[in-house]
Amino acid sequence: MSDKPVLGFIGIGLMGRPMSLHLCKAGYEVHVFNRTSAKLAPLLDAGATAAESPAALTRAADIVFTCLSDTASMEHVVFGPDGVAEGAKENGAGKVLVDHSSIRPDATRDMAARLRGETGMGWVDAPVSGGVAGAEEASLAIMCGGDAGDVERVRPVVGNMCARLTHMGPQGAGQVTKLCNQMVVVCTLAVLAETVNLARKAGIDAARLPEALAGGWADSKPLQIFVPRMAAGEFDPPFGHLATMLKDIDTATDLGRSQGAALPMSTTAAELLRLMGGHGFLDKEPTELVRLYQDLLR
Amino acid sequence: MSDKPVLGFIGIGLMGRPMSLHLCKAGYEVHVFNRTSAKLAPLLDAGATAAESPAALTRAADIVFTCLSDTASMEHVVFGPDGVAEGAKENGAGKVLVDHSSIRPDATRDMAARLRGETGMGWVDAPVSGGVAGAEEASLAIMCGGDAGDVERVRPVVGNMCARLTHMGPQGAGQVTKLCNQMVVVCTLAVLAETVNLARKAGIDAARLPEALAGGWADSKPLQIFVPRMAAGEFDPPFGHLATMLKDIDTATDLGRSQGAALPMSTTAAELLRLMGGHGFLDKEPTELVRLYQDLLR
Repeated sequence: MSDKPVLGFIGIGLMGRPMSLHLCKAGYEVHVFNRTSAKLAPLLDAGATAAESPAALTRAADIVFTCLSDTASMEHVVFGPDGVAEGAKENGAGKVLVDHSSIRPDATRDMAARLRGETGMGWVDAPVSGGVAGAEEASLAIMCGGDAGDVERVRPVVGNMCARLTHMGPQGAGQVTKLCNQMVVVCTLAVLAETVNLARKAGIDAARLPEALAGGWADSKPLQIFVPRMAAGEFDPPFGHLATMLKDIDTATDLGRSQGAALPMSTTAAELLRLMGGHGFLDKEPTELVRLYQDLLR
Repeated sequence: MSDKPVLGFIGIGLMGRPMSLHLCKAGYEVHVFNRTSAKLAPLLDAGATAAESPAALTRAADIVFTCLSDTASMEHVVFGPDGVAEGAKENGAGKVLVDHSSIRPDATRDMAARLRGETGMGWVDAPVSGGVAGAEEASLAIMCGGDAGDVERVRPVVGNMCARLTHMGPQGAGQVTKLCNQMVVVCTLAVLAETVNLARKAGIDAARLPEALAGGWADSKPLQIFVPRMAAGEFDPPFGHLATMLKDIDTATDLGRSQGAALPMSTTAAELLRLMGGHGFLDKEPTELVRLYQDLLR
């Protein structure tokens, strides 16, 4: 008999696969579920057990992790047929859901309250920053919201997937913090694109900006990683999709509206991403935004 | 007889004082000039010689450093009565001016061409990033423009004041690079202010954002240094003045206009700084911009 909690992981995608593998390697009993079951193979090789449904997974697990693409997917997985809520009808009070998806803070609060009300199961929203590389290296920064008891209960397990878990407040606070992160990243992306374009038009080699500005107040991972791609016009392999950044920044500006908080920088950046998306770039690498500035869309 | 070049330093202000002191400590013969001669005292204590005028200083020196507040001051010091150009009438071809001021790239090119034409003296524009702390620690990042021969000649001397000197191109390229730096810093300042305000209105402790986002794509010196000040509403001691940032970003947007380069992020940030300036904050710390977002101007 182990005193380790039994774990479940739903959503074995680009992020979920390396994250759940870390939990298998740490010696936990892990049950896994994915809409496309073929993606479970590397987890089963690592000793995980395939669950028939989110409900079955939740019945077996003490802590259920989710890592899905959007709010609608979370609603379906938790409250849909054979969902987490159904699996938590018995013993729900002893279980916690840890949601690593980046979704709406208001939907998070609503779903957390409903799950607690219907089953007693706790909810910790724990969106991640650091991308696929951070997931693979377990160097993610995770920002979370939820009841302190739930957060401290899951902390030792989550610690296997991240460099740092910061508890920011009640349910939804993790999602708000992730939106703050995305506002800074998207605005930085946009100003870097306009900087690269201005530098080029003014006759300097934009590829040397990261070196020239390194260590100063303008330095950041986006400066060091985005600018060389922008300057070279090389966008492969992609880091991600413009559509994902646009979804996040639109969620942030929705939050700004609902809170009466003006976001002039973020809304400007959002409209630039939308312009780029309108040119057919929604599924392209975000750094291709530089092409909008450079009159290179034709 | 030493084979070290004789140096001159004009402009002993917040930045120029620690920078010129490093040159004295490195064992160079340093001649100094400042409009307000009382500010020379610490330099004279360190072995520097007071010059009667920029012209006299230039006659004595092989390399003349300037660190002034704006384009008009540079024009006056170089081409005004008893200025650098007058001092370079004899032996100008053997001398180089290294301008650490942050001024207009177009004015830099014009003045450099005029000085070369009238006297043969070279011009390296070498604006700095890193602030007073960087000047004191000799950890500045310096980005420069000029002829390669001039840059390599002054590099060993400039190395006493900085961590890195990056040669970006011909005259003016250093100033363009500095403007790129300022665009990123000012846009980051603005998006951080709106992030702090949104976080607060959405019920999370903005003071914890630096910890939660550390090491990720949103991390930067401004995140770590500006956000705690913004969150606490503590703006002392000041880093600098809103007016200086506004001057720099307006110079950048002028460059954008002249080059046909759209700068939607930088112009939005510039107008926010201008709004704040209009409320009487031009001589205040830039991070007070958060008050514009927070409805705390009354």
